[in-house]
Amino acid sequence: MTEQAKGQTWSVNAAQPVSFTIHSCENILDPNNKDLLRFNNSNRRLVVIDKTVNKLYGQQVIDYFKTNNVELCLFEIDATEENKNWANTNTVLQFLEDNSVLRREPIIAVGGGVLLDIVGFCAGVYRRGIPYIKVPTTLLGIVDASIGTKVAVNHFNRRNRIGTYYPPIASLLDKKFIATQDERNIVNGIAEIFKMAIIKDEKLFSILENHAKELINTKFQTDYADTVINLAVSDMVNELTPNLWEKNLERAVDYGHSFSPIIEMKNLPNLFHGEAVVLDCLFSACLSLIRKHITQDELDRIFKTARNLKLPTYHKDFVDVNTLKLALSDTIKHRNGNQYLPVPLSIGNNAILNNVTGEEIYLTITIFQNYENSRNNRNI
Amino acid sequence: MTEQAKGQTWSVNAAQPVSFTIHSCENILDPNNKDLLRFNNSNRRLVVIDKTVNKLYGQQVIDYFKTNNVELCLFEIDATEENKNWANTNTVLQFLEDNSVLRREPIIAVGGGVLLDIVGFCAGVYRRGIPYIKVPTTLLGIVDASIGTKVAVNHFNRRNRIGTYYPPIASLLDKKFIATQDERNIVNGIAEIFKMAIIKDEKLFSILENHAKELINTKFQTDYADTVINLAVSDMVNELTPNLWEKNLERAVDYGHSFSPIIEMKNLPNLFHGEAVVLDCLFSACLSLIRKHITQDELDRIFKTARNLKLPTYHKDFVDVNTLKLALSDTIKHRNGNQYLPVPLSIGNNAILNNVTGEEIYLTITIFQNYENSRNNRNI
Repeated sequence: MTEQAKGQTWSVNAAQPVSFTIHSCENILDPNNKDLLRFNNSNRRLVVIDKTVNKLYGQQVIDYFKTNNVELCLFEIDATEENKNWANTNTVLQFLEDNSVLRREPIIAVGGGVLLDIVGFCAGVYRRGIPYIKVPTTLLGIVDASIGTKVAVNHFNRRNRIGTYYPPIASLLDKKFIATQDERNIVNGIAEIFKMAIIKDEKLFSILENHAKELINTKFQTDYADTVINLAVSDMVNELTPNLWEKNLERAVDYGHSFSPIIEMKNLPNLFHGEAVVLDCLFSACLSLIRKHITQDELDRIFKTARNLKLPTYHKDFVDVNTLKLALSDTIKHRNGNQYLPVPLSIGNNAILNNVTGEEIYLTITIFQNYENSRNNRNI
Repeated sequence: MTEQAKGQTWSVNAAQPVSFTIHSCENILDPNNKDLLRFNNSNRRLVVIDKTVNKLYGQQVIDYFKTNNVELCLFEIDATEENKNWANTNTVLQFLEDNSVLRREPIIAVGGGVLLDIVGFCAGVYRRGIPYIKVPTTLLGIVDASIGTKVAVNHFNRRNRIGTYYPPIASLLDKKFIATQDERNIVNGIAEIFKMAIIKDEKLFSILENHAKELINTKFQTDYADTVINLAVSDMVNELTPNLWEKNLERAVDYGHSFSPIIEMKNLPNLFHGEAVVLDCLFSACLSLIRKHITQDELDRIFKTARNLKLPTYHKDFVDVNTLKLALSDTIKHRNGNQYLPVPLSIGNNAILNNVTGEEIYLTITIFQNYENSRNNRNI
C-alpha cells in the first residue's frame, strides 16, 4: 500500500470550450429590434452604461425595455481611462451584489472600450464568472474591445495590470452609435483599424488611404465604412481566435502596443489609447525601415495616410530614449523576457523582431523625428 | 457590399486546454529533493508563504533555496479566513509588481487552503494570469484546495464572492506538514474527506469509520493515512475533472456547501471551514432520511463516525430556520435559481434534490436536533 502511495501522480486534463458570436446589428435601441432581448428568458435585465452614453441614449434604453415589458436595472459609471481602476470595478461588483444577479443571468455592458473592459472584468470574477453581452458604442469598441476575450483594469499605475481572459456570450455591433462621437474619438477608433491594415490587410490600408476624408466626415455612416468595419472585425477575429489565451506571446496584433502602454499611462488624460497606439505603429514602422522590412516609399505612405486620417504622427515621449527604454523593459516582462516587437513587413504583412539594439532605437528616433521636421519645414 | 455587411455574424470558436499534475512528494524541503525547483529554469523563485507556516518552516525554506543556489524572494501573508479579502490579495499583487515577475515565471504558494486561494486569485489576474505552483501545508489544503482550479477571496461579507477558475501548473503534496498541525486543524481537513466518503466512496468511509482514532492520533503519518489521502485526492480529481469550469451546476462535491457558506461567514473566526461543511453534511443527511435516500441505520453510522472523527455534530445556526432559509436563498442564486441540493444516497453515492419544501427543512431541523438531544441524554 505504501509503495503505491509514494510518488503517486494524478493528472488533470480538460479543455474549456469557448464559443461566442459577434453580430452586426441595426438600430439596436429600436423597440422592434429584439437583439438585446436574446440570450435571456427572464423578465429583467441588468445594464451597466457609460456616463456619456447614458446622457445621449439613456432615455432610449429605458424606453426600449419599458416597451418590451422588461424590468431594467440600470447602473451608470464614468468609464474613462483614469477611472479604469479597482475602485470603479468594485462599484459595478456592488451593483451586481445589490441586485442579487443569478449565476447565469447575462448582464449587458453598453459603452466604449474602457466600459467593456471594466464590466468584462467584473463579469469574469463575480461568483467566478457570470455571462455578459458587449454593446460597444464607439468605433474603438466596435473594432477592438468587442472582439477579444481580454478584460482588465489599470493597477499600480500600469495599464491593464489586473484582468483575465473572459469571453462575452455575444457582442452586438451597431455603428449608428459612432454618429454621436466627436471627431477626435472617431479618429481614436481609426487608429486600431489603421494598425490592423498595416500589419495584415493591404486592401483595408488602400481604402483608408483613398477614403480617409469621407470616412471621417460622414462619421462612418457610409457603405465604405461598412466595408472598413467588416474587414477590421474579420481581421481581428482571424488574428485572435487561434491564440485566444495568448499561449503564444509573439502576437502581430501587439503592433502599436510595445512602447505605447507606459507612454499612454504617463500622459493620461491627454493622450487617447488609439493615439498612443498609432504613435507606436509609426515609430515601429521607422524601426522596420532600418531592418529593410519596408521601403522608404512604404513608410512615406504610412505617415501620409496617418495624417490624412487626422492621426497624431509625433509625440515628445517617442523621441525620448529613456522613456522608450523604460516602456520597452516593462513590455519585455509582459512578453516573458522577450522583445517580440511586431513591425510591418511591406504593407499588409508583419515580422516579429527580437534582437533590437539600443543603437537601433536611437536611429529609429532620428527617422521618426525627421518626419516631424520635414513636415514643419513644409509648413514654413 | 452593403447587403453583405448588414446582419453579418462572426463566430469565435476555440478551446482552452488545461493540463496539470498533482504529485505526492516526500520531504519537499530537503535540499536534495528537487521538486520545488522543477517548472522553472531561472535562478530565482518568488514564494508566498503563510505566516504560521513561515514560523514553523521559514528557515527550512530559506536554507533549501540557499543550498540550491537559487535566489529567494519570500513574502509572508497572514492567510486566515477573516483576511481572505481584497486588501490582502492586493498586498500579494504588490509583491509581484515590486519584484517585476515575468509573464511566465511560476510563483510558489506555500500554505493552507486560504493562502492557496488568495495566491491563486492573484496569479489568475496579474497580467491576466501568470503560472503558479500549489504547496499545501494542511490536510484541508492537500485534499481540497490543491486539487481544483477554483480560486477566490471573500467580498461583500460573502464567501468566495470574487474569484476565477485558474489551474496551477502543479500541486506538490507532502503530508509531513500535517504533523505540525494541531488537532482541531487536522479534524478540519478530515471534514472534506468525510464529505467525499459519504457521497462517493464507501471504502473510504469504512476506513474513516474503523480507523478514526489512529488517523487523528498519528496526525496522518501512517500507511492508513496514505490510503485515505490517496483515495480522497483520486475521488476529488475524478469528480472535478469532467466539470472543471462548473458548466454543470448539479455538483455532488457541493455536498456540505449548500447551507454552510453563509453560516461559516457569520461565525468567523469561531467556526472553521471544515466544521461548517461537516455540519451541513450532517444536516443534509438528515434531509436525505426524510426522502428515504438513506436508512436510519446509515444516518446513525454517519453521525457516529463524525463523532469518532471529533467533528462537530451540532450548531445552533443549523436549527435556526431563518438562518437556514437565508443561506439557502443565496446558494440558490449561486446555482442559478435552482436548489441542486446534494444529499447522500445510501453511503457512497449521492442524489441531487431540487424541490425541497419549507416543511421538509423544519422536519430536517427536528431530526438534526434529536441527534444532539439523544447524545446529551446519554451523557447525563
